[in-house]
Formats: sequence, structure tokens, C-alpha cells
Amino acid sequence: MKDYRTEKDFLGEKNVPEEAYYGIQTIRAKENFPITDYPPHPELIKGFGYVKKGAAMANRDAGMLNRNIAGAVIEASEEVIEGKFNDQFIVDAIQGGAGTSFNMNANEVIANRAIEILGGNKGHYLMVSPNTHVNMGQSTNDAFPTAIHIACLHLAKGLTSALNHLLQTLEQKETEFDDVIKMGRTHLQDAVPIRLGQEFSAYRRVLARDLTRIRQSVDHLYEINMGATAVGTGLNANTDYISKVPDYLSELTGFPFYSAENLVDATQNTDAYTELSAALKVHAINLSKMANDLRLMSSGPRTGLNEINLPSRQPGSSIMPGKVNPVMCEVINQVSFQVIGNDHTISLASEAGQLELNVMEPVLVFNLLQSLSVLQNGLSVFREHGVSGITANIEHCRHLVEKSVGIITAINPHVGYETASRIAKEAIDTGRSVREICLERDILNEEELDRILDSKEMTNPGIAGSEFL
Amino acid sequence: MKDYRTEKDFLGEKNVPEEAYYGIQTIRAKENFPITDYPPHPELIKGFGYVKKGAAMANRDAGMLNRNIAGAVIEASEEVIEGKFNDQFIVDAIQGGAGTSFNMNANEVIANRAIEILGGNKGHYLMVSPNTHVNMGQSTNDAFPTAIHIACLHLAKGLTSALNHLLQTLEQKETEFDDVIKMGRTHLQDAVPIRLGQEFSAYRRVLARDLTRIRQSVDHLYEINMGATAVGTGLNANTDYISKVPDYLSELTGFPFYSAENLVDATQNTDAYTELSAALKVHAINLSKMANDLRLMSSGPRTGLNEINLPSRQPGSSIMPGKVNPVMCEVINQVSFQVIGNDHTISLASEAGQLELNVMEPVLVFNLLQSLSVLQNGLSVFREHGVSGITANIEHCRHLVEKSVGIITAINPHVGYETASRIAKEAIDTGRSVREICLERDILNEEELDRILDSKEMTNPGIAGSEFL
Amino acid sequence: MKDYRTEKDFLGEKNVPEEAYYGIQTIRAKENFPITDYPPHPELIKGFGYVKKGAAMANRDAGMLNRNIAGAVIEASEEVIEGKFNDQFIVDAIQGGAGTSFNMNANEVIANRAIEILGGNKGHYLMVSPNTHVNMGQSTNDAFPTAIHIACLHLAKGLTSALNHLLQTLEQKETEFDDVIKMGRTHLQDAVPIRLGQEFSAYRRVLARDLTRIRQSVDHLYEINMGATAVGTGLNANTDYISKVPDYLSELTGFPFYSAENLVDATQNTDAYTELSAALKVHAINLSKMANDLRLMSSGPRTGLNEINLPSRQPGSSIMPGKVNPVMCEVINQVSFQVIGNDHTISLASEAGQLELNVMEPVLVFNLLQSLSVLQNGLSVFREHGVSGITANIEHCRHLVEKSVGIITAINPHVGYETASRIAKEAIDTGRSVREICLERDILNEEELDRILDSKEMTNPGIAGSEFL
Amino acid sequence: MKDYRTEKDFLGEKNVPEEAYYGIQTIRAKENFPITDYPPHPELIKGFGYVKKGAAMANRDAGMLNRNIAGAVIEASEEVIEGKFNDQFIVDAIQGGAGTSFNMNANEVIANRAIEILGGNKGHYLMVSPNTHVNMGQSTNDAFPTAIHIACLHLAKGLTSALNHLLQTLEQKETEFDDVIKMGRTHLQDAVPIRLGQEFSAYRRVLARDLTRIRQSVDHLYEINMGATAVGTGLNANTDYISKVPDYLSELTGFPFYSAENLVDATQNTDAYTELSAALKVHAINLSKMANDLRLMSSGPRTGLNEINLPSRQPGSSIMPGKVNPVMCEVINQVSFQVIGNDHTISLASEAGQLELNVMEPVLVFNLLQSLSVLQNGLSVFREHGVSGITANIEHCRHLVEKSVGIITAINPHVGYETASRIAKEAIDTGRSVREICLERDILNEEELDRILDSKEMTNPGIAGSEFL
Repeated sequence: MKDYRTEKDFLGEKNVPEEAYYGIQTIRAKENFPITDYPPHPELIKGFGYVKKGAAMANRDAGMLNRNIAGAVIEASEEVIEGKFNDQFIVDAIQGGAGTSFNMNANEVIANRAIEILGGNKGHYLMVSPNTHVNMGQSTNDAFPTAIHIACLHLAKGLTSALNHLLQTLEQKETEFDDVIKMGRTHLQDAVPIRLGQEFSAYRRVLARDLTRIRQSVDHLYEINMGATAVGTGLNANTDYISKVPDYLSELTGFPFYSAENLVDATQNTDAYTELSAALKVHAINLSKMANDLRLMSSGPRTGLNEINLPSRQPGSSIMPGKVNPVMCEVINQVSFQVIGNDHTISLASEAGQLELNVMEPVLVFNLLQSLSVLQNGLSVFREHGVSGITANIEHCRHLVEKSVGIITAINPHVGYETASRIAKEAIDTGRSVREICLERDILNEEELDRILDSKEMTNPGIAGSEFL
Repeated sequence: MKDYRTEKDFLGEKNVPEEAYYGIQTIRAKENFPITDYPPHPELIKGFGYVKKGAAMANRDAGMLNRNIAGAVIEASEEVIEGKFNDQFIVDAIQGGAGTSFNMNANEVIANRAIEILGGNKGHYLMVSPNTHVNMGQSTNDAFPTAIHIACLHLAKGLTSALNHLLQTLEQKETEFDDVIKMGRTHLQDAVPIRLGQEFSAYRRVLARDLTRIRQSVDHLYEINMGATAVGTGLNANTDYISKVPDYLSELTGFPFYSAENLVDATQNTDAYTELSAALKVHAINLSKMANDLRLMSSGPRTGLNEINLPSRQPGSSIMPGKVNPVMCEVINQVSFQVIGNDHTISLASEAGQLELNVMEPVLVFNLLQSLSVLQNGLSVFREHGVSGITANIEHCRHLVEKSVGIITAINPHVGYETASRIAKEAIDTGRSVREICLERDILNEEELDRILDSKEMTNPGIAGSEFL
Repeated sequence: MKDYRTEKDFLGEKNVPEEAYYGIQTIRAKENFPITDYPPHPELIKGFGYVKKGAAMANRDAGMLNRNIAGAVIEASEEVIEGKFNDQFIVDAIQGGAGTSFNMNANEVIANRAIEILGGNKGHYLMVSPNTHVNMGQSTNDAFPTAIHIACLHLAKGLTSALNHLLQTLEQKETEFDDVIKMGRTHLQDAVPIRLGQEFSAYRRVLARDLTRIRQSVDHLYEINMGATAVGTGLNANTDYISKVPDYLSELTGFPFYSAENLVDATQNTDAYTELSAALKVHAINLSKMANDLRLMSSGPRTGLNEINLPSRQPGSSIMPGKVNPVMCEVINQVSFQVIGNDHTISLASEAGQLELNVMEPVLVFNLLQSLSVLQNGLSVFREHGVSGITANIEHCRHLVEKSVGIITAINPHVGYETASRIAKEAIDTGRSVREICLERDILNEEELDRILDSKEMTNPGIAGSEFL
Repeated sequence: MKDYRTEKDFLGEKNVPEEAYYGIQTIRAKENFPITDYPPHPELIKGFGYVKKGAAMANRDAGMLNRNIAGAVIEASEEVIEGKFNDQFIVDAIQGGAGTSFNMNANEVIANRAIEILGGNKGHYLMVSPNTHVNMGQSTNDAFPTAIHIACLHLAKGLTSALNHLLQTLEQKETEFDDVIKMGRTHLQDAVPIRLGQEFSAYRRVLARDLTRIRQSVDHLYEINMGATAVGTGLNANTDYISKVPDYLSELTGFPFYSAENLVDATQNTDAYTELSAALKVHAINLSKMANDLRLMSSGPRTGLNEINLPSRQPGSSIMPGKVNPVMCEVINQVSFQVIGNDHTISLASEAGQLELNVMEPVLVFNLLQSLSVLQNGLSVFREHGVSGITANIEHCRHLVEKSVGIITAINPHVGYETASRIAKEAIDTGRSVREICLERDILNEEELDRILDSKEMTNPGIAGSEFL
């Protein structure tokens, strides 16, 4: 008994495992591209399922696709959406050919499953053809980008939800730490007092802007190019089909898709992806900065700043007993670096588009989907295991403010920059306190100093002790 | 006679050339940072002029700054805005210190000029002090970012205007070339016909989205952090002053500035810059892709595609007579590479912010202002000397379509993908035309072929000859 | 019956599946870092196997590790090297903690397997402790980098072999195409004739330099920091052990490892990785340029340059019958973009090292090992399915040379640049040939032109027809 | 009287200012490329001077160039080398055309100066022609890269000398700080003791490897492609000339130039530049890491680590009196970011080469020369004003070690990881010392603890107190 069926295309024949739903073109791609050993992202497979289902519905309505065949294709596509055939998507995440192999893998799997549904044997493409029926009115050049949009939208939903959740946690911390006076630092040098809550507020706000940026970018993905076919001119796509397919996709996915006004533009340009990746990159930069700050503030416990405590998540060393490291921050730094590097690959791929198409989309989408995934995953655990459990070392923070020289700034308006500089220099050189020197030199009296050097006061706008001016 | 005056600060003394408007801190910075030998961008100097003028007005109104001194500072700042003291801004574009040296250079120049205006001699800072008066209620950490915002806004105005102008020219070309049928290509391989006007339409549309992206990013720069002082807490800034300064800056510059809701956030985060740079990067990617296409389509004249002609701008070779190269496209590619590289530096600088401040702003702003400038400059000449003079080789374009095999795609719906593939293969292998083979094999008749292979028809959505289906 | 055993560490307790060889710290890491869902690279796991085996041998010899325990640890490590426990390495490729979780996963798996070998039950760490015995004399900070070195060296061996193989194929093509005269192009504009073999020679030579660069970088990986322990000072590592462990690792792996002269340096600096990644990046740039050239030269078949043919590897379109695309080149472009983007992430991770350690090594090594893998994989199929089957369209190449104007350059020395420019301009404007115009104007005679315009001659150094000068 | 002379080329006529040494092609380029407003780097101009001088000497010897004309061209080139005509090099640093405008600017300036030397009037190119005589046997495609090589070599000499000087200073610090015991930190968390001298040793060593990397890359620049002419085939270059020109260039510059074995390769590939830039990037990464460490260790003075003091170079704040910032480190970070971003632009430009030429060389060389310059400048001042004046806070460093818990690691081999972990946890939770707890619990006695916890001992390899094991 044969374990293989033989399929052919215009380049020749190939044996396909009997049980396989994919066909000859998938086999060819598998041979051609053993690059990463990563399969397509599950959300991309799902995206193709939606595209093929929506296209079949629209072609059926347009009278182009026989209702029986349409029904089988729709049913098969639904199973793809459900993830039942994920193991049949075997082409590599990085591949030549602008995604044709992804699309043909989907076309072949769906065709063979539809054939089965209609009672035929896999490979009998006269019943349901991957190209003529499943791919009807489509080209890789519209089906693939549309599947990418669907995948990105699903992942972005998860990401924005995780980010939103983190914002809520940061807001709680902002409130919790509103009264914690600590030393503010610029250039890593002692500056003037600030409240820990103010710092968390700054983190929350910049990440909230990231959320807005990501959402705005994601919104552009509702524009799709179904009906563009090969180069955006819509050759071979029935016009009724073209008008119906975005509505069906909207209905199926819940995303408000609409057809690009200009399909030639929408087929060759990949700026929707570079824009989204750029938004993710900006977010990564901001996340990394925040993670660096948290690692710095929690440095110690004995020989660092030791202003805050991060939750202890795991023993930190295979050799140093009792050591605990800021691992949740470190992983966020690394996720950020990954996203920034991915943005670079995405930029290179986008710039390499030529004329009517960008053939570098596979590597572009591999990186874009990865960025969306790792950010979502990273943010979730960062919030849960990192940020939510942060505590402040209130006494130590206050102690640092009190011993600092930076509070000299508040004295500035009262004595002038030059005198203040001299006091500061003496304080630093001798290790004495600003207050002490001011009193000794009769520069300011106790009452004035109490008012001017009130550290809470210093964390709000205005000139402390302005009544003495 | 002495050519130098001696100035001092809390670190010691320095000689300053008698005629110099800058002072000791500028001298120190000049010694410390002989890095690029580039002075600050003229727009940044202008930005400081506005900041210092607006701050003096607000401090005067708030009763903090003596009206005489205020008047002199304002007048001196106006001269800075006019560019009269550009040669006095001698600190390097790349410098340590978060821009303190830029700010102090401005403070010193304005103080010394104000002293002159009030009848004093340069260096007599008791009359007008760089720190106490010119910098009143300010820190580098609010004055510098605000000056950057003003500089970016001015440059962005020029850039968006140049881009808008290019869009108009592209739209003219789109109309002019609407009837030019040419071969569409995907993977650099013959695909299906398209009109040259459609290609220019795609260029216009993606660049129009760039314009929107840039404008949206630029809008965020109206938010400024004047009043933040050192770390965003507003220490030492009079509250009346804080509320007035954005209005004065709006009035002076014509930009609708407003105060950041959270000054701590606005002082430490640089996402407004990374967002703008990211928008410029996405634009650069799209520009480079378009320039590549134009270079490809104009390749030849004899041994390339030769579909379009770019204006001859200069002899192209020191050795090959008569050679003319697509130099205006090539310079756009290079401008794009510069902008993309700059975005990388900007990202690194932004990520390196720590706690209350990002001390890497000088290199960040050097790159950001350069990106804005070179894009504006590049777009202007690209439009004027490149795009506006493009002509099409209409006959050659048509000839290429006619000899191509790619038109087989239109036959697909009539004969099925498999049969069409066989015809295509035979055509490619034998060099015969698709039409010829179809007729010889009685696959389609003359009437059908005339209708189906109409190349204009092929550039519009739908199935050519669908009446025969 | 319990399916779980309970393990504890200084942070508390966790249940571990009874059948698992990993333990509590692996479980913690699994919970903390659900980031990419990618396990460690198999070569990294193998690298840890070697490290643990070599360390056990050296500790045994140094009298630190009981021979029974050592024997069991060695045996367990061998099984790790053989890949028997790959499914037990469950921590994520991107993780916080500088690789501690990778190291502890290895320590736990080996400890539990060693316990089994000694007849105990998994989890009875008094018999064999992950920290005390398996990790003896080690820290993550020396064990992990050493495992990385081993992994990189194995992968680099495969890569350099694949690259070397490609060089051989390019050399064959160089010979095969030595007589194929074709048009040389600069700026994508017709320049002067060149031989296709010369072009392949240029590809071969630049890739040969890449091979040298990669090899030189790889050589630095023989320097390892075993014995450094936590910060490079060697605290807690027996000095006999330190001196023996590199020799054992050399013996086991066949790589000539030696101990870094300065272990503090070797522990905190990651320049060996950035140097290797930079070499890979330079290679990627060169590969991408070559792939672009091949795609350009094979463009067509009817409306492009059509100078060479790439092997037909798969149908190129789901809609355009008979279309074949240069997929093997396209995948090389994409592999290159991935490697260039990875280099960016690696650079960011390297720059983020702080003081005695670089905690960002997990993301660094994830990208570095990926770059090595995808390059090797890409080069292999590119050679086999792409380069080796390239054929030249000899007649078409010759035809393009003959109709070009670029050959005017050869006339230059005989008539001067200015006259030659005039002839060239006329030829381009009128479509006539250079030869025709020269004859008509009596600028050169038939004999001279035959000699000067000999296209083979033009592809060699010298002045064609210099006897006429 | 006319201020302008009229020059013409095959595209038409242009007026050239009478006093200008440049000519029509420079004017065209000036109009076409008003991009950065930066002129060519002075070292690049000098490089062209050498190229033109060497070529004239070789052409003269080969009997191609009349001795009178050769003499004048040589003299004019010497003046270019001396920098006398720097103001005549007016084309923009970023330009289309693969550097043709740089080359023609040089050709025109030298031709006109040579005409003057021979007693003619500028513009009388029949006497000395920019193309026929000054550019004899050359193309931009060999003259420009050779000029770049010369420029890079000169700049690299300065850079490697500055780096070498820094290494010496670091070595002094290494010795000076050899006895300063301080806390080692991993993950910014207290680890185990280390000596400050060991840390400086690590800095020195990684930078020493950078020096080696840079030198190796620079060595490849001795290979030049003079004689390649347009595409590397050597068309129109006299073979005697080809063999002589590298020797003349070696003699003139002192660099051991030799001709590339394969001129086609050497003309189209730019890997020598990407390799050099990659070496600079790796250096930048290492510099930035070191600068970060120094900023961290000098953080404070009161609320940071305060382990070392950097020289006070300038007042650090316009508002905070007495504040001094680590500006020399900050500028090194920024120089590093610039170099890393430049490497990105260089990579993009290199990848964009096509077929026989890389037309993106102008932007590539702009960035490469800038990287070399800013690194040299940055390193010089960093050494002089930053590193050489670093002092250690020896007592504070020792105090931090003593109060740390990290020293528990030394106890590990004596009591096992698990017991040690418990002691560590108790110490951290209670604020008590490790020593105290060990004594109280009778875990180790005074004598043992004295030996085991000797902090100097801990900074050397081995197990402290191994005699007690």
C-alpha cells in the first residue's frame, strides 16, 4: 500500500504523504526554505482561515463559486480558524516568494479538507482546486496582507489589554507612593527632592501615550486590499466579490474592515507595518528606560540606592546564597531590545519593496508578530510579578534626602546662585550639612530654613519660603 | 591693553576674549567638547532666543524680574532670534551635560548683550546675571527641551511644506500618466499590466500618509515643560510665571503651546522626539522605495527597462562620455539612509534616559534636527529637479506589455489555472506569444482574445471578457 | 498517589511534576518568563552538557568532588550532550537573570539524573545537589558564557562549511561564465562591457573575505572564563580545578579552549559576541547585495534584463500561471535582514552590561545563535537550489552589449571626452549606433572601430586600439 | 566687466564665478545637492589631492601625459593636499552620483590651478582638461574609493593613537587602584568583593581588543583599486600606469598601498568600510558600557554609590548650585550613540550597492569619516579631562564591602549553599551582619571567619579558608 499520493504542477511531480492536507506546493516550499524551523505564527494561520472563508462567501454570493464547493471551503476554513490544522502549516516562517507558500499551504489544506467534506479523496483537485476555488479572485498579494492584518489585530488586542492593565497598576502605585519623599537625580547626581509617586506618574503617562500610539497605528490595519489580486488592479476578481469581501471579513472577525481606496497603493506599500512597528519600538524604548530606573532604585540591598524593593521571584545566583535579582525588569529590557532589533529588520524589509510588491513580507511579518507577542507576554508578567509588588523603603528615602546637598537649590532664590554655589561646595567638601553652614554663617535663620528646606514643599511648583523674599 | 576679561564660577577662573558675548561656562564647554566641530543648529539658537524672551516677559509680569533688566533681556533675546549672535554660539553640537552648555551659552550671550544695552561692560554680571536673571525660574531641563520643540516645529513646517509640494507634483504625474499602459512586475518578474499613473498614485498616497504621520507627531510638540525647572517639580519657579510663559511663547512663535499636565513626566521622557523621528524614518523608508523604483524604471537607456526618463541634471561620469545618472533619486536614497541611521542614534539616546532626566539630549537633538533639515532639503530638489520632469516612454512601455507572457493571467478564469500554466510555460520556452498559442490550440478565438487581452481593461478591477464565461 | 514532589529553596516551596528532571528553580523561571515560547537552542543545551561534564572532571581531579558523585554527574551530562533531555530544558529563550535559569535548569536536570544513576529518587538533593555538586566551582557567570562559546563554535563550524561550499560553487560559475560578455552597469545605467565570470568572481571574493572575517571572530571564542565564578575573581573555585577545566573542555569538544588571562574582563565584557555578530552582519550585507544583483539580472523573462536564469523552484503565484520567482534569492535577502536586525538587538544587549556582568546575555545569545543558524541554513539551500543551477542567456547578453551606447567609452582615448560625449548624445537621441555615427563622420575607420570596439578586449585592462593613438 | 566665465558640457552651459577654481560640473552639483550644507571632510579633499598627484606621476611615466601638463597637475595637487583650496570644494557631503561630483570638483580645481600655473586663464580646458588630463586613466569609481582610503587611514591613525593613549592612562589607574577593595555588583545587586584596579583592568583589556580590531580593519584599506576605471575592468587605463600608481601613492602618503588582485571586486564591494565601521561600533558599545559604569560608580555625591570621583569640569546646572556632572562620560556615551547610528547608515548604504558599483558611497563616507573623527576627538578629551583625574573614595568603598551581605558567598564552601542562603536571608531581613549571625549560631568561629571573610583574599581565585574544609 502506498503511503504517498503524487501531485503535479507545471514544474513537475512530487509525492505527498497520504495523510497530509497540504500538497505539492507546500512540499516544494518545505524543501526550499529550511531556515528557522519555526512554523507560521498560529494567529497568521487563523488569519488565512478568515480570509479564505470570507472570500468563499463573497464569491458564492457573486455567483462565481458553486454553492456546494463554497460550503465545503467555508467549513474547512472554519476548522483552520479553530486551529485544527495548525500542524499542517509546515512552511518556514522565513521564506522566499512574498508569502506565496503561506497562501498555497492554506489553499491546499483547505482544498483537501473541502474535498474530504464533499466525500472525495485528498488530492482530487478537480473537485476543489487550491487555486481555482480556494484562491478564487485572490492573489497571495491580497490574501496574505489581509491575513497579516487579522493576525496583527488579534495580537494587538492582547497587547493593548496587557498594557492597559499595567497602566492601572502603575496608577495604584502612583497613589500608594504619593507621600514618599525621595531624592531626585539628574545625571545620576543628587538633584532636588521628588516624590516616588511623581516618578510612577511619569512612568504611567509615557506608557499611556504609548498605548495611544499603538492604538492609532493598529487602526490603520482595518484598511485591507482584498480584491487587489496580483498588483492592485483587481484583474480577475469579480467586482461584486470585491465589494462584499470586506463586509464578510468584518462580520467574521468583529474588526471594522474596509477596502483600501487605492488597491495598487495598498498592495505595494507596507507602511502600515512599519508604522505599527515604530510605535512598538517607541514603547520598547520607554519600557526599557523605566525598567532601568526600577533596577537602579532597587539596587543594593546594602551597597546600592535601595529606595524600593522588587518582589523576590527566584534565587538570583547559582553561587551567591540569598541573592535575588530584578529579573522581571531584566526580562523587560530584553523584550525591549528584541522589539527594537525587530523594528530594524522590519525597516529593512519594508525598504526592499520593489514596484508592485514587497516580496520581503515573510521576514517582516515574522518579526512584527513576534514583537506583538513578546511585548504582550512581557508586560503581563512584568505587571503581575514585578510592578504590582513594589514596595518603598520610606525611611531610607527620607534619610537620603536629608543628607543630600541638592536641597541647596531651594535656597538659591533667597541668596543668589553664586552664594548658594559656595555653600554647596563647602558642604560637599566638608561633609557638613547645608543647614548647618547657613546657620553658622548667618545666611538664613532657623525659621527660614525650616520653611525653605521643607522637603515635601520642594516637590511642588513654586519658591519655597517666598514670603521671605 | 588686555584682550581678555577674567570670569569666575565656583570651579575657578577663566579668561574670556573681551569681544565675546559668551562667558566662562561657554569657554569651559568649548574646551571639554571639541567633538564634531559643528555649532548648534541655527534653529536651536533661535529656539533659545524665544525661550529666554518669553521667560523674561513672564517673570517680569510675575514681579520676579526687575522691568529694566527684563527689558534688556528681552531685547537681547530678540537679537538672538534674528541670528545676530549665531557666531557666539560656539559650544559643540555633541556635548555632555544634557544641554547645560547650550543653555549657559545662551544665558551668557543674552546677559552680556543685556548688560551692554543697559550701558555696562560685558562680564559685569551683577547688572544682569546669566543664572539669576536670564535663567530665572528655569533649568536647562525645561529651557532646552522647549527650545528644541521650537526648533523642530520651525523645521517641520518647512519639511511638511516641501512634502506637500511634492505630493502636488506627484498628483500631476498621476494624471499625466493615467493612460500609459506598462508592465506590472512582482518579484521583478513580469506580472500583469498596470498604468504608470496608477504607480504614481501609489507613491503619492503612501507619501500623503507620511505627511499625516509627521503632522500628528509634530502636534505633540506643542506640549512644553516650562516651569518644570530641575526635575519637573517646579521648584524655584514662581507659579504666576509658570502659568504665563506658555502663552507668551505661543504669542511670540505663533505655535499653540501649552503646559504639560505633568511636568515630571514631560521633563524626563523623550518620546515626543522618538515618535517624530520614527515618523521621519517611516517616511524615509517609503521615499527610498520610491527612489529605487524610479531608478529601476529609468534604467538603461539601452540595456535596462527604459520605461521612464528622469531629467538630465549633470554629466554622470568622469570617464564615460554621455552618461547621465539618476542622481536626484540617488540623493534621496542617501538622505533616507541618513534619516534611518539618525533614528537609531535617537533611539539609543532616548533609551539612555535615567530617572529624572535624559542627559543624552544633545546627540538626540543633533540627529533629529539634521533629519528634519536633510529631508526638507532633499524633498525640495527631488521634486524640482527630479520628479517634475519625469517623462514616459509610452511606446516602449506598450511594447513590453505586448511581448510579455504575464497577460496569461487574464485568460485564467476562462481556461483554469492548470491549462493557463501550460500555455504560459510553452510561451516562455518557445518565445511565442500567448495569443498565438491559444489560437493554434483552439483554446480561445480571435474575438474572445481581443476582449480578454485588452491591456487597458486589464488594469481595472474585474474579469476581462466575463461575458464569455 | 502524588504526581508531584515538593521542592524548596530559600524563597519557599513549589510542586514539581514527579517525572520532571528539572526542579524548583526551573519551575520558577518557567512561571516568570513565558515570553517567546521558544526553548533554549539545542546547541546551547549541549554546551551546558559539556561545561558540567568538564567541570565535574576537573573538580574530581582537584579532590573537591567525591568520585561517585562525579561519575554520576559526568554520565548525566553525557546524556544531556546526546540530547536525551532536550525536553527537560523548558525555560524561555528570553529570560531575566543573566542566564541563571538556563544554568539552574541544567544543574537541576543533571543533578536529578545523577541521583537516579546513583539509585536515588529525583529531588533528593542531599545525594547530588544542583548547586553544591553540579555547579561546583562555577557561577552562571562563567558556566553560561562557556556554554555559549561551545554552542557558537558548533554552529559556526556548520556555517563556515556551508559558506565554503558556496564559494566553491561560485568559483565554478566564475569559470563557466568567463566568456560571457555582458553589459556592465553603474547607477543601473549602461556603462561598459564586462564578463559574467568577472561578476561572479567579485561575488566570490567578497564572500571569501566574509569567511575570513567570521573565522577570525570565531577564533576568539576559544578564550573562556571558567573559574571566574561570580565576578571574575575566582572566589570559591579551587585553583587546581581552574587550571584543569579548559583542558578537559578542549578534550571533550575538540576546540582548543584556553583560560582568559583576565577573568574579570572575560566575565563582564561581551565583545566576543558583538564582534562575531558584526562579522555576520557584514556578511549579510554582502549576501543581500549579491542576491539583489541576481534578482535584477534574472528579471523578466520578457520585460526585464533577462541575462541569467535561476532554477525554477516552485510556482511563483497563486493567480498568475507559469510565473516563477527568484525565491532562493529572496529568502537570502530575508535571512540577511534578520541577521542585520539581530545584530542590532545584540548591540543593544551588549551596551547594557553594567559593572561586573552583562545580565542581558539571554536575548543576546538567542539572537546570535539564530543568526548563525539561519545563515547556515540559508546558504546551504541558496547554493544547492539557487546558485548552482544558474545559467546565462549568452546571446541576449551579447545583444545588449551591441546595442548599448556605453561602448563609447573605449573611443574616449582616441577622440577626447568632449567629442565622445557628442557622439554618445547623438546615439542616444537618435537610436543609431556609435559605430555608424563614427563612420559617417569620418571620426574613426572600420579597422580602428573593429579593434577599439572589440567587446572582449574591453573587459581587460588597457586602452583598446592603443596602437592607433 | 564680467565676473563670470561661461563653461559648457554636453548638457549645456553655466556661468562660473571668475575667481572660482571649480567649474561647470561643480556648479551643477552645488545646485542639485543642497542637502546638509556640510562640505567634504578636509581629509577627503586631501585624499583626492594625493590621488590626482599620484595618477599624474604614473601617467607621465607611462608616456600618456605630457610632462608639462603633468608637472602643473602635480603642483596643483600638492596645493590641494596642503589645504589651500579647501574653500573651492563646495559640493555637499551627501550627494547623488557615487561621488562623481567630488571627483569632478577635484578635477576642475586642479585643472584650473594647473592652467594658471601654465600661464593660462581658468576655464581654458584645452590646456589642461579636468577629464582628459587630471582624470586620465581614472574614473570616479577608482579615484573616489582611493581618496576615501587615504582619508580613513589618516583619521584612523589619529584615532588609534588617541585610543592607545587612553589605554596607557587606564593602565596607570589599574595600578593606582590595585589595592582598593570595593563591592562587586552583578544585576546592580551586591555580589562579592572586587578591587577597583581589577575593574579598570577589565576596561583596559576590552578597549585594547578594540584597538586590535580597528587596526586589523584599517589594514585592509591598503588595498586600492586604482586602474579599475569605470567597472573594474581597467578599460582606458594604460597598463604601465596601473602598475605604477599604487607605488606612487605609497611613496606620497607613507601608507603601503597595493593594487587589489581583482579590480571588479574592489570596485563594487564596500565591505572594507562596513568592516571598519563595525569595528568602530563594537568599540563604541564597549566605550558606552565603561562610561555608564563610571557614571554609576561616581553617582552621588551623597545619595549614590560615590565610590569614585570624576574631575570637576564645569558647573553642572543652571539652577542647582554646586552641582557637577559626569560630563566627560556623558559625551562619550553620545559619541558612541552617534557611531552606532552611523554604522546603521553605513550598512544601509553598503547593502544598496548594485551590480558594478555602489552609488551610495557619499553618505557612507560622510558617516564613516565622522565616526572616525568624533571617536578620536571624544577619546582625547575623555582621557585628558575624564579618566586621568579619577580618584577613589577608598574608605567608602571599604565601608560598603563591610556592610554587605554578599560576602556570604565565601562561606558557601564551608557550610553549603542551603545553610548559607538561610544566613543571608536572615542578615538581609534583620539588618544584622553575616559574621554576627555565624558566631551566634556557632556556624563558624572567629578564627575561621577572620580568614574566610578577608576581603582582599576574596578578590583572588580560590576558596578562602580552604584549610578549614
